[in-house]
Amino acid sequence: MSSNSGADGPSPPASADDVDDLLDAMTLEEKVGQLVGTYVGQMGEEKTLEDAKREVVDDHVGSVSPFGIGISTRDDPVQAAETANELQRTAVEETPHGIPLHVPVDAVHGHAYLNGTTVFPHNLGMAAARDAELVERGGAVTGHECAATGATVNYGPTCDVARDQRWGRVFETYGESPYLCGELAAAEARGLRGDGDEPTVAATAKHFPAYGQPARGEDASVVEISESTFRRDFLPPFERILDEGVDVVMPCYNSLDGEPVHGSERFLTSLLREELGFDGVVTSDWGGVDHLHDYHGTSDGRRTSAWQSLSAGLDLVSVGGPDYAETLVELVRAEELSEARIDRSVRRVLELKATLGLFDDPYVDPEAVTDVVSRDSHRDASVDAARESMTLLKNDGVLPLSESDDVLVTGPNADDLHHQFGGWSVMDDSDLRGVTVREGIAGVVGEESVTYEPGADVTETVDVDAAASAAEDADAAVVVLGEDWYIHEFGPQGMNRPTGEFPTRTRLGLPDAQRDLLEAVRATGTPTVLVLISGRPLSIPWADEHVPGILMAYYPGMDGGTAVADTLFGRHNPSGRLPVSVPRSTGHLPTRFNYLRHPTPIGADEHPDSYDPLYAFGHGLSYTEFEVTDLSLSAESVGPAGTVEVDVTAENVGDRDGAKSVDLFVEDVVSSRVTPAREHVGFAKTAIEAGESATLSMTVPVERLAVHGRDYERVEPGEFVFSCEGETAALTVRSGGQ
Amino acid sequence: MSSNSGADGPSPPASADDVDDLLDAMTLEEKVGQLVGTYVGQMGEEKTLEDAKREVVDDHVGSVSPFGIGISTRDDPVQAAETANELQRTAVEETPHGIPLHVPVDAVHGHAYLNGTTVFPHNLGMAAARDAELVERGGAVTGHECAATGATVNYGPTCDVARDQRWGRVFETYGESPYLCGELAAAEARGLRGDGDEPTVAATAKHFPAYGQPARGEDASVVEISESTFRRDFLPPFERILDEGVDVVMPCYNSLDGEPVHGSERFLTSLLREELGFDGVVTSDWGGVDHLHDYHGTSDGRRTSAWQSLSAGLDLVSVGGPDYAETLVELVRAEELSEARIDRSVRRVLELKATLGLFDDPYVDPEAVTDVVSRDSHRDASVDAARESMTLLKNDGVLPLSESDDVLVTGPNADDLHHQFGGWSVMDDSDLRGVTVREGIAGVVGEESVTYEPGADVTETVDVDAAASAAEDADAAVVVLGEDWYIHEFGPQGMNRPTGEFPTRTRLGLPDAQRDLLEAVRATGTPTVLVLISGRPLSIPWADEHVPGILMAYYPGMDGGTAVADTLFGRHNPSGRLPVSVPRSTGHLPTRFNYLRHPTPIGADEHPDSYDPLYAFGHGLSYTEFEVTDLSLSAESVGPAGTVEVDVTAENVGDRDGAKSVDLFVEDVVSSRVTPAREHVGFAKTAIEAGESATLSMTVPVERLAVHGRDYERVEPGEFVFSCEGETAALTVRSGGQ
Repeated sequence: MSSNSGADGPSPPASADDVDDLLDAMTLEEKVGQLVGTYVGQMGEEKTLEDAKREVVDDHVGSVSPFGIGISTRDDPVQAAETANELQRTAVEETPHGIPLHVPVDAVHGHAYLNGTTVFPHNLGMAAARDAELVERGGAVTGHECAATGATVNYGPTCDVARDQRWGRVFETYGESPYLCGELAAAEARGLRGDGDEPTVAATAKHFPAYGQPARGEDASVVEISESTFRRDFLPPFERILDEGVDVVMPCYNSLDGEPVHGSERFLTSLLREELGFDGVVTSDWGGVDHLHDYHGTSDGRRTSAWQSLSAGLDLVSVGGPDYAETLVELVRAEELSEARIDRSVRRVLELKATLGLFDDPYVDPEAVTDVVSRDSHRDASVDAARESMTLLKNDGVLPLSESDDVLVTGPNADDLHHQFGGWSVMDDSDLRGVTVREGIAGVVGEESVTYEPGADVTETVDVDAAASAAEDADAAVVVLGEDWYIHEFGPQGMNRPTGEFPTRTRLGLPDAQRDLLEAVRATGTPTVLVLISGRPLSIPWADEHVPGILMAYYPGMDGGTAVADTLFGRHNPSGRLPVSVPRSTGHLPTRFNYLRHPTPIGADEHPDSYDPLYAFGHGLSYTEFEVTDLSLSAESVGPAGTVEVDVTAENVGDRDGAKSVDLFVEDVVSSRVTPAREHVGFAKTAIEAGESATLSMTVPVERLAVHGRDYERVEPGEFVFSCEGETAALTVRSGGQ
Repeated sequence: MSSNSGADGPSPPASADDVDDLLDAMTLEEKVGQLVGTYVGQMGEEKTLEDAKREVVDDHVGSVSPFGIGISTRDDPVQAAETANELQRTAVEETPHGIPLHVPVDAVHGHAYLNGTTVFPHNLGMAAARDAELVERGGAVTGHECAATGATVNYGPTCDVARDQRWGRVFETYGESPYLCGELAAAEARGLRGDGDEPTVAATAKHFPAYGQPARGEDASVVEISESTFRRDFLPPFERILDEGVDVVMPCYNSLDGEPVHGSERFLTSLLREELGFDGVVTSDWGGVDHLHDYHGTSDGRRTSAWQSLSAGLDLVSVGGPDYAETLVELVRAEELSEARIDRSVRRVLELKATLGLFDDPYVDPEAVTDVVSRDSHRDASVDAARESMTLLKNDGVLPLSESDDVLVTGPNADDLHHQFGGWSVMDDSDLRGVTVREGIAGVVGEESVTYEPGADVTETVDVDAAASAAEDADAAVVVLGEDWYIHEFGPQGMNRPTGEFPTRTRLGLPDAQRDLLEAVRATGTPTVLVLISGRPLSIPWADEHVPGILMAYYPGMDGGTAVADTLFGRHNPSGRLPVSVPRSTGHLPTRFNYLRHPTPIGADEHPDSYDPLYAFGHGLSYTEFEVTDLSLSAESVGPAGTVEVDVTAENVGDRDGAKSVDLFVEDVVSSRVTPAREHVGFAKTAIEAGESATLSMTVPVERLAVHGRDYERVEPGEFVFSCEGETAALTVRSGGQ
């Protein structure tokens, strides 16, 4: 154990007392170094490994990401592990107290900034699977792979609720149901943090507390919501994950009620620490502190922003580097921040390092990395996740296709792993590990039965005639459309090939080039299936009307091609359910299943334009048919502290085996405050063989039925109506007891 | 004076003491009758005059609208006055205390539910004129005409701020600037209530406190805003009009922060009465109390809704009729409401009747009505208002047209007064008084020089070829497009001819039939001008690119045709400025000038799609050119209780006389809470002859620069930058004093 070899201070801390001893021995400069991070990579200002090492030694910087926060070109897992070790060695051997580093990473769908790792579907697809264990399993794989390469903290799970389909981070969320988001984020955190058998990473709940409804879908713009909506629709996933246990919380970029969260004591202290009881590390999002003066206009410069953030409750300026370290020293010297305030944050940072065992051993074994990232069990988890996410939106009998078909495969997302991974993935095109849709279909029907024509790029026509001509010669056409790689809003073009005007938040439809390709192929009369690889639900009313089969594949990750092909040809019977509503157009926004009840506009009944979603939350077809009956509750009445068990029977009345998942909703018939038309309070999934039945069981604590208002959250007595696929059952909540 | 001839009670009240005496003499049933209203007309359940009289006598109902709330077929002003008299006579002579009636009316753009009256542009157009005196003059005309026909209370001014262009009531607002909405609503109230020289009406501030941002533009759906936005963007017009003086407040239909306003003590008592100090009558909107149980789900039926509303602070259930009267009696008998609570509301209702002089004389002179509604001064006010509202959006030199031109006039709004009036107008097509665009143009160029082809109905093609052919033969083509008559969302079809799918909130563009007509006419190469008669800003990117001249006429009222023609041919030099942003598409919503500052999304700079409005708030061209210079402040620094005078010089450097209006904006450079990118704090307008200059002066109390947060409203010291048409001037606000 060499972790303290360069130290002249106390022994490595193994307890809170040890951290106190270490704190006592540290200079102010050494302390504030623990409150800033730096990086190796090209995002923003390019920094080399030598730059980062110099900042660790000279500026006492205590957190370094070599994976890139946002982006990195260092995509070799073995090299990443070696780099992490080199950074840790610098910190341990060349700094006075030998304090090891935090090494954060943005591993939001697998450890996907490194090549050769396991790349899962993005969270929106994971949510379609309606399976918390599947998500936990994915989190565990990611945690092991991150830890194997030297990462100590993952910037996930995302706890954001997607409430505007235009937003460029919808794919990173678990969808629009606060309950689903909370359960799956908690499951991911369990997986990431592990069970102690094998090294894993710390988990970060982000982006606290309300990020997913930016004005006009514009990333990081104002989230304009009432206090009751905040507490009903946005806070629950964070409450859930904090109950589960999480190490780090990251604030959202935006302002809420006029307060940028990175500088808000109301949100970071009164709410997060005092009300919710979180005592871990609060780390800024990239540039989030600078935004106070750069964008929000609530600060006149770095010094004020640093003061505001630390005063508000932030512990760590994630990429603040030497500049912020120097500023924090100045603030303490000027007695604008107390050293006790600094100590509180440093203690949290050091305690997390101690908890993670970094003082015992911060090093990883580069020779073991390749074995970890190429484990069969990891790949199996990826394949399972991709298959379970497949969501069949429409099937007029065209699916499943026959394995004896000659198939045209076309479209910009048919043969591009980059698009299939989506954002937050390695940038380098070469040697990506994975299976494209074209490859997956060739694996089913044989290479010789597949014709591939790109037809169109994401926004530009390539050769539609060639695709249409090939469609005429084929037995079936698979048109794979959707979105390109992007992060946040679009993804800077410097990170990727130019994406032109797409994706764009101002329309949710397909670009003209893709739409033209689809129409031309469909016009041939050859049975046509549309596969959407896309981070957001796309408004596709034309396809819904004219294309007989539509499969939503989200960003399905490395095994997306296998999952799509298996689904198209019936080797996998799809069971995914939409975790987010698909609106008819941007003019129909907001479109959500759990809208608040409200008066019907005068005259609305007499006008035929439909305001229903094109595809509703929970929509998803199967190749077999299920009959859902006998929704039953464990009690007819229950107290506010009670729990109700909800069972429902599903019978597979078709002739194929398949998995059935259900969503459980509740309506609060009369309440003191306006409640949603229906709220999502349960989900369950099980495999059911053809001809067989199964009972799906869900447990609903009555507190999940609470009514929210400003300064008001209470379970109210009265009638609640549960519903599941047309079945309903009423529950009376009594005024007291279990 | 016969007002008490049927009474066996005290003398007519002339003071608060008298009202108390009257109250003492009234039975509970008589009291609650004062708290409910009824109507004569066809909206909802059809009620005849005899029905209403019976309710007055048998059920003590104290408020009757014979004009229709929403709609009436009784459109003769003289008959209306006779009806009002008959109703008053019934109340005075056939009820125990002879209490006269309140007679409310929805006169939101003139007394437009009666034919032959003066019909002004709707408020959105009035706001384009940027002239409070013009609005006050219009209010006075409306007040006199209402009073002449026996109305006692007008349900206006609208104080709502339009924050979603999809909303079906945008045309009823003064636009999207809270400051402009407040100033013009106050001006309208001054006009309606009059100066005592002549009978006028009571004014109603509606719809309190936040209505104009319904979710997805769906009328009466949830207004989802933070507390700080509520206080910054929605409350100011109400604060302004309450300071000005107003008699009645009407709550909005929607819920805020989970509380339906019609049943919210927080909004109707804590905010309205206690914080804002209003002690007048709070009257429900049509059906607003029923909505608590019908829609919001916060009540289990009429009894609970009545209890909630009265407990919350409502005084009068506007169309509650005998049903609500009976319910209120039950609630008092059951001791769920105190009689003292009832008395408080009855006292307010009776005091308003006393203030209006109804106890002295509730009757009007039917023989005088025709003279009042046909006064030249009223018509002049209408013509001036319509002309001043004209807003020239684009002019590539095609305008003004020549009076020697042969002109094609086409489009569904070219020759239809119904469309030109817009909603809240008399339904009967026959004998409408006014000038259509076709007639107005004929008045300028002569009937023989005008060819009229309808071309298209609002949503259906009529004969595009005929229009295009006529365009080829003409020197100029005027294509008059836009929206049909509607109220709220669409307007029930039973009230009007069917409107098909248009207007619709899901797209803000022109219907295909209208777009086809415009494209066909434009394709002829004949100089083409698009005139929009529309209640909402329409997204017209194609027209913006291809049509050389575009004039926004809003719903211009009876003299819209004159105003449009005078503008098109240069007899009037347009000076209107948009009171609301025109978005590029529904995908760009929300689009507002005063959005809150926020971080720029990652990658946004590299993508070319424009998020600016198609036409910005304040946009509006002239036939002359103005140079705006020398923005100057009366002081470089000022205290929070101070006032700053802002002057700017406008020089007419073109060769035509014209009026110039300016908007003044301010940016709060650094603030404790996020502030708008710019806020509207002043406007001014003056006529300037060609070659001349003028100074436009605006007074800005520093309190208008306050920063808003939750439980936070304060003028903060620091720098503020005023801007006006590219000119800027900085003001330092000191921490104390004037």
